[in-house]
Amino acid sequence: MATKPSIPKGTRDFLPEEMEKRNYIFNTIKSVYAQYGFRPIETPAMENLSTLMGKYGEEGDKLLFKILNSGDYLHDVTDEDWREHNSNKMLKKLSEKGLRYDLTVPFARFVVQYRDQIKFPFKRYQIQPVWRADRPQKGRYREFYQCDADVVGSDSLVNELELIEIIDTVFSKFGIRVAVKINNRKVLAGIADMIGAPDKIVDITVAIDKLDKIGLEAVNAELLGKGLDDRQVAALQPVLLMQGGNREKLAALSQILQASEMGVKGVAELTELLDLLDGAEIRNTVELDLTLARGLNYYTGTILEVKALDVQIGSITGGGRYDNLTGIFGMEGVSGVGISFGADRIYDVLNQLDLYPKSAAMGTQIIFLNFGPAELRYLLPLVRRVREAGIAAEIYPDAVKFKKQMGYANDRQIPYVAIVGEDEMAKGVVMLKDMATGEQNPLTIDQLIAKFH
Amino acid sequence: MATKPSIPKGTRDFLPEEMEKRNYIFNTIKSVYAQYGFRPIETPAMENLSTLMGKYGEEGDKLLFKILNSGDYLHDVTDEDWREHNSNKMLKKLSEKGLRYDLTVPFARFVVQYRDQIKFPFKRYQIQPVWRADRPQKGRYREFYQCDADVVGSDSLVNELELIEIIDTVFSKFGIRVAVKINNRKVLAGIADMIGAPDKIVDITVAIDKLDKIGLEAVNAELLGKGLDDRQVAALQPVLLMQGGNREKLAALSQILQASEMGVKGVAELTELLDLLDGAEIRNTVELDLTLARGLNYYTGTILEVKALDVQIGSITGGGRYDNLTGIFGMEGVSGVGISFGADRIYDVLNQLDLYPKSAAMGTQIIFLNFGPAELRYLLPLVRRVREAGIAAEIYPDAVKFKKQMGYANDRQIPYVAIVGEDEMAKGVVMLKDMATGEQNPLTIDQLIAKFH
Repeated sequence: MATKPSIPKGTRDFLPEEMEKRNYIFNTIKSVYAQYGFRPIETPAMENLSTLMGKYGEEGDKLLFKILNSGDYLHDVTDEDWREHNSNKMLKKLSEKGLRYDLTVPFARFVVQYRDQIKFPFKRYQIQPVWRADRPQKGRYREFYQCDADVVGSDSLVNELELIEIIDTVFSKFGIRVAVKINNRKVLAGIADMIGAPDKIVDITVAIDKLDKIGLEAVNAELLGKGLDDRQVAALQPVLLMQGGNREKLAALSQILQASEMGVKGVAELTELLDLLDGAEIRNTVELDLTLARGLNYYTGTILEVKALDVQIGSITGGGRYDNLTGIFGMEGVSGVGISFGADRIYDVLNQLDLYPKSAAMGTQIIFLNFGPAELRYLLPLVRRVREAGIAAEIYPDAVKFKKQMGYANDRQIPYVAIVGEDEMAKGVVMLKDMATGEQNPLTIDQLIAKFH
Repeated sequence: MATKPSIPKGTRDFLPEEMEKRNYIFNTIKSVYAQYGFRPIETPAMENLSTLMGKYGEEGDKLLFKILNSGDYLHDVTDEDWREHNSNKMLKKLSEKGLRYDLTVPFARFVVQYRDQIKFPFKRYQIQPVWRADRPQKGRYREFYQCDADVVGSDSLVNELELIEIIDTVFSKFGIRVAVKINNRKVLAGIADMIGAPDKIVDITVAIDKLDKIGLEAVNAELLGKGLDDRQVAALQPVLLMQGGNREKLAALSQILQASEMGVKGVAELTELLDLLDGAEIRNTVELDLTLARGLNYYTGTILEVKALDVQIGSITGGGRYDNLTGIFGMEGVSGVGISFGADRIYDVLNQLDLYPKSAAMGTQIIFLNFGPAELRYLLPLVRRVREAGIAAEIYPDAVKFKKQMGYANDRQIPYVAIVGEDEMAKGVVMLKDMATGEQNPLTIDQLIAKFH
């Protein structure tokens, strides 16, 4: 036999058992999105490179998968190009398309392209794979699904409220206990303002983000290393050391940030959101966390992240508000807010906590064994009735040995086996074997159907 | 504003209205596949070019989208390669991966790769996009979904029966009247045998396939042009002119083909399949059609195609049995049979016949208007109860003018609008407006929920 075939590194096949679990995750998320009035869209896997390049930073440009032009792709490449041997420059002539890197940039492109057909506020969800030429490692793939929902064309914090309700509902359905961490980019900007280092906001948020991991001393050292002076680092301490509940933190912030217009606005937004959340019945904890920064620099307001309480794993959902996502495609002034569920991590959490519905409930319920043409003729109309009653059923296609057929039923973990031989045919019944208990009973087809309802 | 962004030619975005219709199609197909014990798998969008190349003929190799290697993709290209300027030869150094061209070859690769984990007979379905660098034209796209189901590891014609039942059930659910055309490759091979031109089987089937379109005379001329002699073309006439019902055709074939071992086997298979179909309750017509050839040369037994009766359009589903699909990856002797629904054409047929469920039934059922913070506080717990009762509901996020909010409800075709002002708050009710009739009634939240159940 030839060498076993394989797939590109960092990509995955999904076998039926995995697919059934993944579908459970996607279907749960979809149903909650729909419950809140979000509607599905899809965009092509390939986008023009002009849409993608420059949107994810220099590193992101490198991580885009590029599609070689069709036909004679060398057509436009000159000897001069070849002598220069510049991969980047030649790329423009070899490739016009790339695989989407996330769902956010294609969505921004979509909103601008269909601005005249879309009704705003536009609430969409999108569940599709994305591709990144990252170095594959445990839990990081080159192809993975994103599950995004966004509202664009509305500034109202009711959108943030509803997205947090969606998160709360989805994880309650899964049975995963979570903490929803929230923060606001305007508050972070206010903090940078307040210590007189507005241009250092990225360095400050990156450093704050590490507080949990490396501790206060190391964070302070890093801030000094980034060019903040002693006075500025000292001024940051009340923020870094802030304790207490959400409302206490807000009260403290409102003091600290009173001189920063941006900071005051951020505090007002957080206050309004907490007020709205008080009126809702959120089952999980929502916690104001000033160390939450989120890397993506298009966020301008609320930011949020979700942590599983019972499993050690990174953020399993994230999101935030952006004021000008469509600006990159020339359409200004469209504010939006969105979230993205991390399906791969949720998959791992559900596995670790053993929270999946029994696989038996997701697949074939009953298999009819096959003893030959006469028995088959008798069976076919019965199986049809069982299926029409909404019960997933199989017939073993080949009239092979009983043991082989039972082995298949067993391996597949099909909960019931229906056995019809001469005896059963004569009596007009089906022998139903419960594979869990081993018990078997002769039933009419009506009795059999009733058993599953 | 910058130029409007766009997407690569031959690709599509799907807006919510289209997505809801497409999901209706995919969900219907999935549910019937599952009813018959088929289980989902997924494979990566990218496959190694070694998996894909040479599997679709020379033309197919050209139509594969190739992915440029990451990083310095020019690394392995030499000056010598450049001087040769041979796109094909250089390709091996620039690209190792391509986008899948269909679901069949990746499935064959999958079966071989996981042969030790899979239980045979293995019944899988797979609904994923495929990519082809074809010249785009009406109804032909560079990215489109395939919806395949296959059984591998079983020779039984019960599989063919069940796939035809699946086709019959799916189109009955859609309300599309169809004819299922069946034939058998062994019969076609037998015909080629019988006229003493076994090496001309491809030319003969291609010519027969055109009978409907170009007529008998032109088919005969084409056959002569392909190197058949007058005697051979004359011997073919009884086949080309064959009339009558399925059983009559079979009887005639069994006479004509009695000297061909292959032909006799094909007739026996068709007879057994028709016997099995007699025992089933197929709602649509199943018709033995000797002009059905299907282009793909891996088919070896039953072949089938589905035509819509009430719309002029090509085949909307096709399939067949192949004896050795996994042979291309070194695993011999695994017979399989499969079908593939043509989702894009089914989409068009449902549109033309106006057979979609009302879009109202698929999206948001009710929208609560937003008159400001006090009303919102009152609303939030009510909306939550409505959603928990399984009713898809929205809140208009911004407290903008009544007319604008009503305009949104109208544009979105949301069937009910809930209006809560001071009056309703005082009385503990919600004013429910039926957008179809214009009627409005004050209801308690319990009465409102009851209305949707």
